[in-house]
Amino acid sequence: MDAHRAGLIHAVLIAPEKKLRVLAVEAGIDLGTADIIDVPHSHAAAELAAQMAADRQLEALMKGSLHTDELIHAVVMQKGLRTGRRMSHVFRFETPAYPKPLYITDAALNIAPSLSEKADIVQNAILLAQIMGVAEPKVAILAAVETVNPNMPSTLDAAALCKMADRGQIKGGLLDGPLAFDNAVSMHAAEIKHITSRVAGQADILVAPDLESGNMMAKQLEYLGGASGCGLVLGARVPIALTSRADTATTRSASALLAKLIAHHYRTHPA
Amino acid sequence: MDAHRAGLIHAVLIAPEKKLRVLAVEAGIDLGTADIIDVPHSHAAAELAAQMAADRQLEALMKGSLHTDELIHAVVMQKGLRTGRRMSHVFRFETPAYPKPLYITDAALNIAPSLSEKADIVQNAILLAQIMGVAEPKVAILAAVETVNPNMPSTLDAAALCKMADRGQIKGGLLDGPLAFDNAVSMHAAEIKHITSRVAGQADILVAPDLESGNMMAKQLEYLGGASGCGLVLGARVPIALTSRADTATTRSASALLAKLIAHHYRTHPA
Repeated sequence: MDAHRAGLIHAVLIAPEKKLRVLAVEAGIDLGTADIIDVPHSHAAAELAAQMAADRQLEALMKGSLHTDELIHAVVMQKGLRTGRRMSHVFRFETPAYPKPLYITDAALNIAPSLSEKADIVQNAILLAQIMGVAEPKVAILAAVETVNPNMPSTLDAAALCKMADRGQIKGGLLDGPLAFDNAVSMHAAEIKHITSRVAGQADILVAPDLESGNMMAKQLEYLGGASGCGLVLGARVPIALTSRADTATTRSASALLAKLIAHHYRTHPA
Repeated sequence: MDAHRAGLIHAVLIAPEKKLRVLAVEAGIDLGTADIIDVPHSHAAAELAAQMAADRQLEALMKGSLHTDELIHAVVMQKGLRTGRRMSHVFRFETPAYPKPLYITDAALNIAPSLSEKADIVQNAILLAQIMGVAEPKVAILAAVETVNPNMPSTLDAAALCKMADRGQIKGGLLDGPLAFDNAVSMHAAEIKHITSRVAGQADILVAPDLESGNMMAKQLEYLGGASGCGLVLGARVPIALTSRADTATTRSASALLAKLIAHHYRTHPA
Protein backbone atom coordinates (compact mmCIF):
# COMPACT_ATOMS: atom_id res chain seq x y z
CA MET A 1 0.00 0.00 0.00
CA ASP A 2 2.94 2.37 0.64
CA ALA A 3 4.17 1.80 -2.94
CA HIS A 4 0.63 2.15 -4.27
CA ARG A 5 -0.02 5.40 -2.41
CA ALA A 6 3.27 6.79 -3.70
CA GLY A 7 2.06 6.09 -7.24
CA LEU A 8 4.87 3.62 -7.91
CA ILE A 9 2.60 0.67 -8.57
CA HIS A 10 -1.10 0.09 -8.95
CA ALA A 11 -2.14 -2.51 -6.37
CA VAL A 12 -4.76 -5.16 -7.10
CA LEU A 13 -5.53 -6.98 -3.86
CA ILE A 14 -6.87 -10.49 -4.42
CA ALA A 15 -8.17 -11.77 -1.10
CA PRO A 16 -11.22 -12.68 0.98
CA GLU A 17 -12.49 -9.09 1.05
CA LYS A 18 -14.18 -9.07 4.46
CA LYS A 19 -11.11 -10.45 6.24
CA LEU A 20 -8.89 -8.07 4.30
CA ARG A 21 -10.92 -5.01 5.33
CA VAL A 22 -10.98 -6.06 9.00
CA LEU A 23 -7.20 -6.51 8.96
CA ALA A 24 -6.69 -3.17 7.23
CA VAL A 25 -8.75 -1.37 9.88
CA GLU A 26 -6.89 -3.18 12.69
CA ALA A 27 -3.53 -2.24 11.18
CA GLY A 28 -4.64 1.33 10.43
CA ILE A 29 -3.98 0.93 6.70
CA ASP A 30 -6.12 2.89 4.19
CA LEU A 31 -6.91 0.65 1.22
CA GLY A 32 -7.73 3.81 -0.71
CA THR A 33 -7.82 3.40 -4.47
CA ALA A 34 -6.41 -0.12 -4.67
CA ASP A 35 -8.56 -2.60 -6.62
CA ILE A 36 -9.94 -5.35 -4.41
CA ILE A 37 -11.03 -8.67 -5.88
CA ASP A 38 -12.96 -10.90 -3.51
CA VAL A 39 -12.13 -14.62 -3.42
CA PRO A 40 -13.21 -17.26 -0.90
CA HIS A 41 -9.73 -18.42 0.27
CA SER A 42 -5.98 -18.24 -0.36
CA HIS A 43 -6.04 -21.11 -2.84
CA ALA A 44 -8.56 -19.26 -5.01
CA ALA A 45 -6.51 -16.07 -4.65
CA ALA A 46 -3.39 -17.81 -5.98
CA GLU A 47 -5.27 -19.37 -8.90
CA LEU A 48 -7.00 -16.16 -9.92
CA ALA A 49 -3.78 -14.15 -9.65
CA ALA A 50 -1.95 -16.63 -11.91
CA GLN A 51 -4.87 -16.60 -14.36
CA MET A 52 -4.99 -12.80 -14.48
CA ALA A 53 -1.21 -12.64 -14.97
CA ALA A 54 -1.46 -15.15 -17.84
CA ASP A 55 -4.21 -12.96 -19.37
CA ARG A 56 -1.89 -9.92 -19.11
CA GLN A 57 -4.21 -8.20 -16.62
CA LEU A 58 -1.42 -8.15 -14.01
CA GLU A 59 2.22 -7.34 -14.71
CA ALA A 60 3.70 -8.75 -11.50
CA LEU A 61 2.65 -10.91 -8.56
CA MET A 62 3.46 -10.29 -4.91
CA LYS A 63 2.86 -12.90 -2.25
CA GLY A 64 0.73 -11.91 0.74
CA SER A 65 0.44 -14.20 3.75
CA LEU A 66 -0.45 -17.32 1.80
CA HIS A 67 2.22 -20.01 1.52
CA THR A 68 4.92 -19.73 -1.13
CA ASP A 69 4.13 -23.25 -2.37
CA GLU A 70 0.50 -22.27 -2.93
CA LEU A 71 1.37 -19.30 -5.14
CA ILE A 72 4.22 -21.01 -7.02
CA HIS A 73 2.09 -24.08 -7.68
CA ALA A 74 -0.67 -21.92 -9.18
CA VAL A 75 1.90 -20.18 -11.41
CA VAL A 76 3.45 -23.48 -12.55
CA MET A 77 -0.01 -24.80 -13.44
CA GLN A 78 -0.67 -21.78 -15.73
CA LYS A 79 0.67 -22.71 -19.16
CA GLY A 80 0.42 -19.07 -20.20
CA LEU A 81 3.00 -18.06 -17.57
CA ARG A 82 5.67 -20.55 -18.57
CA THR A 83 8.91 -19.62 -20.29
CA GLY A 84 11.56 -22.06 -21.46
CA ARG A 85 13.40 -21.48 -18.18
CA ARG A 86 12.99 -22.90 -14.72
CA MET A 87 11.69 -20.39 -12.19
CA SER A 88 14.21 -19.33 -9.59
CA HIS A 89 14.59 -16.72 -6.88
CA VAL A 90 17.19 -13.96 -6.75
CA PHE A 91 17.93 -11.80 -3.72
CA ARG A 92 19.53 -8.39 -4.13
CA PHE A 93 21.38 -7.08 -1.07
CA GLU A 94 23.20 -3.89 -0.25
CA THR A 95 25.59 -4.46 2.61
CA PRO A 96 28.03 -2.07 4.30
CA ALA A 97 30.96 -4.50 3.96
CA TYR A 98 30.83 -4.86 0.16
CA PRO A 99 31.28 -2.04 -2.34
CA LYS A 100 28.41 -3.01 -4.66
CA PRO A 101 25.08 -4.86 -4.56
CA LEU A 102 25.28 -8.63 -4.09
CA TYR A 103 22.82 -10.91 -5.83
CA ILE A 104 22.30 -14.28 -4.12
CA THR A 105 20.52 -17.18 -5.77
CA ASP A 106 18.63 -19.47 -5.18
CA ALA A 107 17.80 -18.98 -1.53
CA ALA A 108 14.06 -19.56 -1.73
CA LEU A 109 12.73 -21.84 -4.43
CA ASN A 110 14.87 -24.71 -5.75
CA ILE A 111 15.84 -27.14 -3.00
CA ALA A 112 18.49 -29.25 -4.72
CA PRO A 113 18.81 -28.02 -8.31
CA SER A 114 20.26 -30.22 -11.03
CA LEU A 115 22.92 -28.91 -13.39
CA SER A 116 20.39 -27.82 -16.01
CA GLU A 117 18.27 -26.16 -13.36
CA LYS A 118 21.39 -24.37 -12.09
CA ALA A 119 22.01 -23.10 -15.62
CA ASP A 120 18.54 -21.49 -15.55
CA ILE A 121 19.16 -20.17 -12.05
CA VAL A 122 22.35 -18.49 -13.27
CA GLN A 123 20.66 -17.11 -16.39
CA ASN A 124 17.78 -15.64 -14.37
CA ALA A 125 20.21 -13.93 -11.99
CA ILE A 126 22.27 -12.52 -14.86
CA LEU A 127 19.10 -11.09 -16.38
CA LEU A 128 18.12 -9.39 -13.11
CA ALA A 129 21.59 -7.92 -12.57
CA GLN A 130 21.64 -6.66 -16.16
CA ILE A 131 18.25 -5.01 -15.78
CA MET A 132 19.63 -3.34 -12.64
CA GLY A 133 22.46 -1.89 -14.70
CA VAL A 134 25.35 -4.37 -14.40
CA ALA A 135 26.38 -4.76 -18.04
CA GLU A 136 28.29 -8.05 -17.64
CA PRO A 137 27.65 -9.46 -14.17
CA LYS A 138 30.48 -11.39 -12.52
CA VAL A 139 29.01 -14.69 -11.40
CA ALA A 140 30.70 -16.76 -8.66
CA ILE A 141 29.52 -20.36 -8.55
CA LEU A 142 30.05 -21.16 -4.88
CA ALA A 143 31.20 -24.35 -3.18
CA ALA A 144 33.06 -25.00 0.05
CA VAL A 145 36.37 -25.04 -1.84
CA GLU A 146 37.83 -23.42 -4.93
CA THR A 147 39.20 -26.62 -6.47
CA VAL A 148 37.35 -29.35 -8.38
CA ASN A 149 36.77 -32.23 -5.98
CA PRO A 150 35.12 -35.44 -7.20
CA ASN A 151 33.65 -35.92 -3.70
CA MET A 152 31.83 -32.58 -3.86
CA PRO A 153 29.29 -32.66 -6.70
CA SER A 154 28.77 -28.89 -6.49
CA THR A 155 32.36 -28.34 -7.63
CA LEU A 156 31.70 -30.47 -10.72
CA ASP A 157 28.50 -28.52 -11.45
CA ALA A 158 30.47 -25.28 -11.09
CA ALA A 159 33.03 -26.40 -13.65
CA ALA A 160 30.25 -27.51 -16.02
CA LEU A 161 28.40 -24.17 -15.66
CA CYS A 162 31.58 -22.27 -16.59
CA LYS A 163 31.96 -24.40 -19.70
CA MET A 164 28.28 -23.83 -20.54
CA ALA A 165 29.00 -20.09 -20.44
CA ASP A 166 32.04 -20.63 -22.71
CA ARG A 167 29.79 -22.42 -25.20
CA GLY A 168 27.03 -19.79 -25.13
CA GLN A 169 24.59 -22.04 -23.25
CA ILE A 170 24.53 -19.34 -20.56
CA LYS A 171 24.75 -15.76 -21.84
CA GLY A 172 25.60 -12.29 -20.65
CA GLY A 173 27.66 -13.03 -17.55
CA LEU A 174 31.29 -13.67 -16.66
CA LEU A 175 31.29 -16.99 -14.77
CA ASP A 176 33.85 -18.59 -12.48
CA GLY A 177 33.65 -21.45 -10.06
CA PRO A 178 34.02 -23.39 -7.95
CA LEU A 179 34.88 -20.49 -5.65
CA ALA A 180 34.64 -20.49 -1.88
CA PHE A 181 32.78 -17.60 -0.27
CA ASP A 182 35.98 -15.82 0.77
CA ASN A 183 37.63 -15.91 -2.65
CA ALA A 184 34.36 -14.80 -4.27
CA VAL A 185 34.10 -11.55 -2.30
CA SER A 186 37.65 -10.81 -1.10
CA MET A 187 40.46 -9.96 -3.49
CA HIS A 188 42.91 -10.55 -0.65
CA ALA A 189 41.62 -14.08 -0.04
CA ALA A 190 41.70 -14.81 -3.77
CA GLU A 191 45.30 -13.61 -4.01
CA ILE A 192 46.46 -15.70 -1.06
CA LYS A 193 44.99 -18.76 -2.76
CA HIS A 194 46.68 -17.75 -6.05
CA ILE A 195 43.37 -17.74 -7.90
CA THR A 196 43.60 -16.12 -11.33
CA SER A 197 40.09 -15.06 -12.18
CA ARG A 198 38.12 -12.06 -13.43
CA VAL A 199 35.34 -12.93 -10.98
CA ALA A 200 37.15 -13.81 -7.74
CA GLY A 201 37.10 -11.06 -5.14
CA GLN A 202 34.58 -8.95 -7.04
CA ALA A 203 31.52 -11.11 -7.69
CA ASP A 204 28.16 -9.48 -8.40
CA ILE A 205 26.21 -12.73 -8.21
CA LEU A 206 26.74 -15.56 -5.74
CA VAL A 207 25.21 -18.84 -6.90
CA ALA A 208 24.63 -21.20 -3.98
CA PRO A 209 24.99 -24.95 -4.54
CA ASP A 210 21.59 -25.58 -2.95
CA LEU A 211 18.68 -23.92 -1.17
CA GLU A 212 20.07 -24.43 2.32
CA SER A 213 23.40 -22.75 1.78
CA GLY A 214 21.71 -19.95 -0.21
CA ASN A 215 19.08 -19.40 2.43
CA MET A 216 21.64 -19.26 5.25
CA MET A 217 23.84 -16.83 3.32
CA ALA A 218 20.92 -14.52 2.59
CA LYS A 219 19.55 -14.57 6.12
CA GLN A 220 22.96 -14.11 7.68
CA LEU A 221 23.63 -11.07 5.47
CA GLU A 222 20.37 -9.57 6.69
CA TYR A 223 20.58 -10.51 10.37
CA LEU A 224 24.32 -10.30 11.11
CA GLY A 225 25.69 -8.36 8.14
CA GLY A 226 23.49 -5.27 8.39
CA ALA A 227 22.29 -5.79 4.82
CA SER A 228 19.00 -4.63 3.38
CA GLY A 229 17.59 -6.65 0.57
CA CYS A 230 14.72 -7.54 -1.62
CA GLY A 231 14.08 -10.40 -3.96
CA LEU A 232 12.15 -11.78 -6.88
CA VAL A 233 11.30 -14.95 -8.72
CA LEU A 234 12.31 -14.88 -12.37
CA GLY A 235 11.66 -17.42 -15.10
CA ALA A 236 7.88 -16.96 -15.38
CA ARG A 237 6.23 -14.47 -17.77
CA VAL A 238 5.72 -12.08 -14.85
CA PRO A 239 8.07 -11.36 -11.95
CA ILE A 240 6.94 -12.71 -8.57
CA ALA A 241 7.88 -11.10 -5.27
CA LEU A 242 8.06 -13.62 -2.42
CA THR A 243 8.04 -11.46 0.65
CA SER A 244 8.44 -13.11 4.03
CA ARG A 245 6.31 -12.55 7.12
CA ALA A 246 9.33 -10.99 8.84
CA ASP A 247 9.88 -8.40 6.07
CA THR A 248 9.43 -4.71 6.80
CA ALA A 249 7.28 -2.34 4.73
CA THR A 250 10.49 -0.92 3.25
CA THR A 251 11.64 -4.34 2.06
CA ARG A 252 8.23 -5.00 0.55
CA SER A 253 8.22 -1.64 -1.23
CA ALA A 254 11.71 -2.40 -2.59
CA SER A 255 10.52 -5.79 -3.86
CA ALA A 256 7.50 -4.16 -5.50
CA LEU A 257 9.76 -1.67 -7.29
CA LEU A 258 12.13 -4.42 -8.38
CA ALA A 259 9.12 -6.31 -9.77
CA LYS A 260 8.01 -3.17 -11.60
CA LEU A 261 11.43 -2.79 -13.24
CA ILE A 262 11.42 -6.42 -14.40
CA ALA A 263 7.85 -6.10 -15.67
CA HIS A 264 8.90 -3.05 -17.66
CA HIS A 265 11.80 -5.02 -19.14
CA TYR A 266 9.53 -7.92 -20.09
CA ARG A 267 7.11 -5.48 -21.76
CA THR A 268 9.86 -3.82 -23.78
CA HIS A 269 11.75 -7.05 -24.57
CA PRO A 270 9.05 -9.61 -25.40
CA ALA A 271 10.47 -13.15 -25.44
CA MET B 1 55.69 -18.32 17.43
CA ASP B 2 53.85 -15.30 18.91
CA ALA B 3 52.02 -17.61 21.33
CA HIS B 4 55.23 -19.48 22.09
CA ARG B 5 57.20 -16.32 22.79
CA ALA B 6 54.42 -15.09 25.07
CA GLY B 7 54.82 -18.31 27.07
CA LEU B 8 51.27 -19.42 26.31
CA ILE B 9 52.27 -22.62 24.52
CA HIS B 10 55.46 -24.53 23.96
CA ALA B 11 55.92 -24.92 20.21
CA VAL B 12 57.35 -28.07 18.63
CA LEU B 13 57.92 -27.41 14.95
CA ILE B 14 57.91 -30.58 12.86
CA ALA B 15 59.16 -29.70 9.40
CA PRO B 16 61.99 -30.00 6.89
CA GLU B 17 64.40 -27.98 9.05
CA LYS B 18 66.45 -26.31 6.34
CA LYS B 19 63.40 -25.00 4.50
CA LEU B 20 61.88 -23.91 7.79
CA ARG B 21 64.94 -21.90 8.79
CA VAL B 22 65.16 -20.21 5.40
CA LEU B 23 61.48 -19.21 5.59
CA ALA B 24 61.90 -17.95 9.15
CA VAL B 25 64.80 -15.70 8.13
CA GLU B 26 62.86 -14.42 5.10
CA ALA B 27 59.84 -13.64 7.27
CA GLY B 28 61.97 -12.13 10.04
CA ILE B 29 60.68 -14.63 12.61
CA ASP B 30 62.96 -15.72 15.46
CA LEU B 31 62.50 -19.45 16.08
CA GLY B 32 64.05 -18.87 19.53
CA THR B 33 63.48 -21.68 21.99
CA ALA B 34 60.94 -23.69 19.98
CA ASP B 35 61.82 -27.35 19.50
CA ILE B 36 62.50 -28.22 15.88
CA ILE B 37 62.18 -31.78 14.62
CA ASP B 38 63.57 -32.37 11.16
CA VAL B 39 61.55 -34.50 8.73
CA PRO B 40 62.02 -34.99 4.97
CA HIS B 41 58.58 -33.78 3.80
CA SER B 42 55.07 -32.78 4.85
CA HIS B 43 53.77 -36.36 4.77
CA ALA B 44 56.43 -37.41 7.28
CA ALA B 45 55.65 -34.34 9.39
CA ALA B 46 51.98 -35.31 9.60
CA GLU B 47 52.78 -38.93 10.48
CA LEU B 48 55.32 -38.04 13.14
CA ALA B 49 53.04 -35.42 14.67
CA ALA B 50 50.18 -37.93 14.95
CA GLN B 51 52.57 -40.54 16.39
CA MET B 52 53.94 -38.13 19.00
CA ALA B 53 50.42 -37.05 19.95
CA ALA B 54 49.38 -40.70 20.37
CA ASP B 55 52.46 -41.19 22.58
CA ARG B 56 51.37 -38.19 24.71
CA GLN B 57 54.46 -36.19 23.70
CA LEU B 58 52.25 -33.49 22.18
CA GLU B 59 49.04 -32.16 23.67
CA ALA B 60 47.65 -30.47 20.58
CA LEU B 61 48.32 -30.32 16.85
CA MET B 62 48.31 -27.23 14.66
CA LYS B 63 48.37 -27.42 10.89
CA GLY B 64 51.10 -25.50 9.07
CA SER B 65 51.02 -25.16 5.30
CA LEU B 66 50.52 -28.84 4.57
CA HIS B 67 47.09 -29.90 3.31
CA THR B 68 44.30 -30.52 5.81
CA ASP B 69 43.65 -33.96 4.30
CA GLU B 70 47.28 -34.94 4.90
CA LEU B 71 47.16 -34.11 8.60
CA ILE B 72 43.68 -35.50 9.23
CA HIS B 73 44.53 -38.73 7.39
CA ALA B 74 47.61 -39.22 9.58
CA VAL B 75 45.49 -38.66 12.71
CA VAL B 76 42.76 -41.07 11.57
CA MET B 77 45.42 -43.73 10.90
CA GLN B 78 46.72 -43.45 14.50
CA LYS B 79 44.67 -45.87 16.57
CA GLY B 80 46.00 -44.22 19.72
CA LEU B 81 44.31 -40.94 18.81
CA ARG B 82 40.83 -42.33 18.21
CA THR B 83 37.90 -41.73 20.51
CA GLY B 84 34.44 -43.22 20.10
CA ARG B 85 33.39 -40.04 18.30
CA ARG B 86 33.78 -38.83 14.75
CA MET B 87 36.19 -35.94 14.39
CA SER B 88 34.57 -32.64 13.49
CA HIS B 89 35.49 -28.98 13.26
CA VAL B 90 34.03 -26.16 15.35
CA PHE B 91 34.50 -22.45 14.64
CA ARG B 92 34.11 -19.90 17.40
CA PHE B 93 33.26 -16.38 16.25
CA GLU B 94 32.77 -13.07 17.99
CA THR B 95 30.75 -10.73 15.83
CA PRO B 96 29.50 -7.19 16.48
CA ALA B 97 25.90 -8.03 15.51
CA TYR B 98 25.38 -10.82 18.05
CA PRO B 99 25.58 -10.45 21.83
CA LYS B 100 27.61 -13.61 22.52
CA PRO B 101 30.09 -15.92 20.78
CA LEU B 102 28.68 -18.05 17.97
CA TYR B 103 29.97 -21.57 17.41
CA ILE B 104 29.56 -22.87 13.85
CA THR B 105 29.99 -26.52 12.92
CA ASP B 106 31.03 -28.30 10.71
CA ALA B 107 32.48 -25.84 8.23
CA ALA B 108 35.73 -27.64 7.53
CA LEU B 109 35.83 -31.42 7.82
CA ASN B 110 32.69 -33.47 7.18
CA ILE B 111 31.35 -32.94 3.66
CA ALA B 112 27.91 -34.58 3.88
CA PRO B 113 27.54 -36.02 7.39
CA SER B 114 25.07 -38.81 8.13
CA LEU B 115 22.71 -38.56 11.10
CA SER B 116 25.06 -40.44 13.42
CA GLU B 117 27.97 -38.30 12.29
CA LYS B 118 25.84 -35.20 12.93
CA ALA B 119 25.21 -36.48 16.46
CA ASP B 120 28.98 -36.55 17.03
CA ILE B 121 29.36 -33.13 15.40
CA VAL B 122 26.78 -31.72 17.83
CA GLN B 123 28.39 -33.44 20.82
CA ASN B 124 31.84 -32.11 19.94
CA ALA B 125 30.50 -28.57 19.63
CA ILE B 126 28.66 -28.82 22.96
CA LEU B 127 31.88 -29.95 24.61
CA LEU B 128 33.83 -26.99 23.20
CA ALA B 129 31.17 -24.47 24.22
CA GLN B 130 31.05 -25.98 27.72
CA ILE B 131 34.81 -25.79 28.09
CA MET B 132 34.53 -22.13 27.05
CA GLY B 133 32.10 -21.54 29.90
CA VAL B 134 28.62 -22.01 28.41
CA ALA B 135 27.01 -24.33 30.98
CA GLU B 136 24.18 -25.60 28.75
CA PRO B 137 24.80 -24.46 25.19
CA LYS B 138 21.74 -23.70 23.06
CA VAL B 139 22.15 -25.67 19.85
CA ALA B 140 20.25 -24.66 16.69
CA ILE B 141 20.14 -27.39 14.06
CA LEU B 142 19.87 -25.32 10.89
CA ALA B 143 17.96 -25.94 7.70
CA ALA B 144 16.44 -23.60 5.13
CA VAL B 145 13.09 -23.76 6.94
CA GLU B 146 11.85 -24.21 10.49
CA THR B 147 9.29 -26.91 9.68
CA VAL B 148 9.82 -30.62 9.04
CA ASN B 149 9.70 -31.15 5.27
CA PRO B 150 9.98 -34.66 3.82
CA ASN B 151 11.66 -33.18 0.73
CA MET B 152 14.47 -31.66 2.82
CA PRO B 153 16.41 -34.47 4.53
CA SER B 154 18.20 -31.99 6.80
CA THR B 155 14.89 -31.14 8.47
CA LEU B 156 14.37 -34.84 9.27
CA ASP B 157 17.90 -35.11 10.65
CA ALA B 158 17.21 -32.04 12.80
CA ALA B 159 14.10 -33.59 14.29
CA ALA B 160 16.00 -36.85 14.93
CA LEU B 161 18.88 -35.03 16.63
CA CYS B 162 16.44 -33.28 19.00
CA LYS B 163 14.95 -36.64 19.93
CA MET B 164 18.45 -38.07 20.45
CA ALA B 165 19.06 -35.26 22.94
CA ASP B 166 15.73 -36.08 24.65
CA ARG B 167 16.89 -39.70 25.00
CA GLY B 168 20.33 -38.84 26.32
CA GLN B 169 22.10 -39.92 23.14
CA ILE B 170 23.45 -36.37 22.93
CA LYS B 171 24.29 -34.76 26.26
CA GLY B 172 24.85 -31.36 27.79
CA GLY B 173 23.09 -29.08 25.30
CA LEU B 174 19.64 -27.69 24.69
CA LEU B 175 18.77 -28.66 21.10
CA ASP B 176 16.17 -27.33 18.71
CA GLY B 177 15.72 -27.71 15.00
CA PRO B 178 15.00 -27.48 12.22
CA LEU B 179 15.49 -23.74 12.55
CA ALA B 180 16.22 -21.32 9.73
CA PHE B 181 19.17 -18.97 10.22
CA ASP B 182 16.95 -15.99 11.05
CA ASN B 183 14.90 -17.76 13.73
CA ALA B 184 18.11 -19.19 15.24
CA VAL B 185 19.72 -15.80 15.88
CA SER B 186 16.85 -13.30 15.98
CA MET B 187 14.18 -13.36 18.68
CA HIS B 188 12.09 -11.04 16.52
CA ALA B 189 12.18 -13.44 13.55
CA ALA B 190 11.33 -16.36 15.84
CA GLU B 191 8.36 -14.49 17.31
CA ILE B 192 6.97 -13.53 13.91
CA LYS B 193 7.07 -17.20 12.92
CA HIS B 194 5.40 -18.14 16.24
CA ILE B 195 8.23 -20.50 17.17
CA THR B 196 8.09 -21.60 20.79
CA SER B 197 11.61 -22.65 21.66
CA ARG B 198 14.28 -22.15 24.29
CA VAL B 199 16.92 -22.05 21.54
CA ALA B 200 15.37 -19.87 18.82
CA GLY B 201 16.70 -16.33 18.72
CA GLN B 202 19.52 -17.05 21.18
CA ALA B 203 21.54 -19.96 19.81
CA ASP B 204 25.12 -20.49 20.97
CA ILE B 205 25.86 -23.21 18.43
CA LEU B 206 24.74 -23.27 14.79
CA VAL B 207 24.89 -26.76 13.29
CA ALA B 208 25.04 -26.62 9.48
CA PRO B 209 23.36 -29.36 7.46
CA ASP B 210 26.52 -29.89 5.42
CA LEU B 211 30.03 -28.60 4.82
CA GLU B 212 29.04 -26.17 2.09
CA SER B 213 26.44 -24.25 4.04
CA GLY B 214 28.70 -24.28 7.14
CA ASN B 215 31.68 -23.06 5.20
CA MET B 216 29.73 -20.24 3.55
CA MET B 217 28.25 -19.13 6.88
CA ALA B 218 31.66 -19.07 8.56
CA LYS B 219 33.39 -17.24 5.72
CA GLN B 220 30.58 -14.73 5.35
CA LEU B 221 30.71 -13.94 9.07
CA GLU B 222 34.41 -13.25 8.72
CA TYR B 223 34.40 -11.37 5.40
CA LEU B 224 31.09 -9.46 5.51
CA GLY B 225 30.08 -9.66 9.17
CA GLY B 226 33.23 -8.19 10.72
CA ALA B 227 33.67 -11.31 12.86
CA SER B 228 36.93 -12.62 14.25
CA GLY B 229 37.15 -16.32 14.80
CA CYS B 230 39.22 -19.34 15.48
CA GLY B 231 38.52 -23.01 15.21
CA LEU B 232 39.44 -26.53 16.23
CA VAL B 233 38.91 -30.14 15.38
CA LEU B 234 37.46 -32.18 18.25
CA GLY B 235 36.83 -35.89 18.49
CA ALA B 236 40.45 -37.07 18.51
CA ARG B 237 42.49 -37.55 21.72
CA VAL B 238 44.17 -34.20 21.08
CA PRO B 239 42.64 -31.00 19.71
CA ILE B 240 43.73 -30.05 16.19
CA ALA B 241 43.88 -26.47 14.95
CA LEU B 242 43.25 -26.22 11.19
CA THR B 243 44.43 -22.75 10.35
CA SER B 244 43.98 -21.49 6.81
CA ARG B 245 46.56 -19.79 4.62
CA ALA B 246 44.55 -16.58 4.80
CA ASP B 247 44.54 -16.50 8.63
CA THR B 248 46.31 -13.71 10.48
CA ALA B 249 48.81 -14.24 13.30
CA THR B 250 46.11 -13.16 15.76
CA THR B 251 43.70 -15.83 14.51
CA ARG B 252 46.44 -18.44 14.74
CA SER B 253 47.32 -17.40 18.29
CA ALA B 254 43.64 -17.58 19.24
CA SER B 255 43.41 -21.09 17.77
CA ALA B 256 46.53 -22.13 19.68
CA LEU B 257 45.01 -20.86 22.93
CA LEU B 258 41.73 -22.62 22.23
CA ALA B 259 43.70 -25.83 21.62
CA LYS B 260 45.51 -25.32 24.89
CA LEU B 261 42.23 -24.98 26.80
CA ILE B 262 40.87 -28.16 25.25
CA ALA B 263 44.10 -30.02 25.93
CA HIS B 264 43.88 -28.95 29.56
CA HIS B 265 40.31 -30.24 29.72
CA TYR B 266 41.31 -33.58 28.20
CA ARG B 267 44.15 -33.89 30.75
CA THR B 268 41.87 -33.16 33.69
CA HIS B 269 38.90 -35.20 32.37
CA PRO B 270 40.43 -38.39 30.93
CA ALA B 271 37.91 -40.29 28.79
